[in-house]
Amino acid sequence: MSLHPLFLHISEQVAITPDEFVKTLRHFKTVNYPKKSLVIRADEYISHQYFVVSGCLRSFLMDDNQREHTAQFAIENWWVSDFTAYFTGSKSILFVECIEDCELLAIHKSSLDKLYACVPSLEYFFRKKLEKALVALQKRIIANLYKTAEERYHDFLINYPNIEQRVRNYQIASYLGITPESLSRIRKAGMQVNG
Amino acid sequence: MSLHPLFLHISEQVAITPDEFVKTLRHFKTVNYPKKSLVIRADEYISHQYFVVSGCLRSFLMDDNQREHTAQFAIENWWVSDFTAYFTGSKSILFVECIEDCELLAIHKSSLDKLYACVPSLEYFFRKKLEKALVALQKRIIANLYKTAEERYHDFLINYPNIEQRVRNYQIASYLGITPESLSRIRKAGMQVNG
Repeated sequence: MSLHPLFLHISEQVAITPDEFVKTLRHFKTVNYPKKSLVIRADEYISHQYFVVSGCLRSFLMDDNQREHTAQFAIENWWVSDFTAYFTGSKSILFVECIEDCELLAIHKSSLDKLYACVPSLEYFFRKKLEKALVALQKRIIANLYKTAEERYHDFLINYPNIEQRVRNYQIASYLGITPESLSRIRKAGMQVNG
Repeated sequence: MSLHPLFLHISEQVAITPDEFVKTLRHFKTVNYPKKSLVIRADEYISHQYFVVSGCLRSFLMDDNQREHTAQFAIENWWVSDFTAYFTGSKSILFVECIEDCELLAIHKSSLDKLYACVPSLEYFFRKKLEKALVALQKRIIANLYKTAEERYHDFLINYPNIEQRVRNYQIASYLGITPESLSRIRKAGMQVNG
């Protein structure tokens, strides 16, 4: 029998017993979303964050000209939500859509507080997750300030291994803040360099 | 007698008794840095984060062409460090310099863990600080994807009230990822609109 992906994910950071994991899992709810459906819509209050068991998702902002700007992708073992809305209690500004059929584990804000009381080592786990997320965002901001689009595309491939075949070109381009045409040029140049 | 700025800062988020605050303060060390000095240099291991009691600082990256890119400013009641290096144990990539004479409260990583054991409500306080920092970075990334330089300059003025007179033009421009000339144009246009 294979171990639960959330158990493996938590165990990478903190020691958790099978008994504690059973208690943990009771605070989550399995939800399934078909490809192209929306997990989160803009302009809503958000009380859940989601662990990705299987599938691929994307959070994006739609501007006044109906252009999409990708904030984040999420694949197996990632967490996704509109975290600004989730943490601050403000309305969401992002959409979260399923690029593939998705199986997610949803946890409500209030359940998370109960979970900390029930399995204290998870408070440490979620703090470490926050620190890692902060580091990732800090790196992306600094990269935006001084790296070329080619370099940022290379960073993207490292941060999201094997995701390139799962998402569409315009979605990657809108994550990098460049046009799909620029992305195609970068890819072609890369293929020529790599033979 | 006025209350300690760190006491006021913590009290905004969690209830802390004067006795707990005395215990807390024992984990910090007051450090003074003159204007233009460096608190952190690139390529060093970082074990402290700093609370700003007075003064103004800037963290920046120096690229291979010796150009500076501002990651963050910090004024009174802000926290500053190279957080990527601090959290991950990797070497710093940022410099942190004092734009003015600074009084800081430094806390070592290992002291923070001891502090949590000593004053448990501070674990919650620092988690909330992390969440807020994450929200701020997420907003900046999304703004970079779709807002104009004018709009991002406006966001900067809201995020850092009254800082404009304390820092230099090129430092703000490098935070926004634009040239000092573009920043001057934006400011002139703003003055004309505002009469």
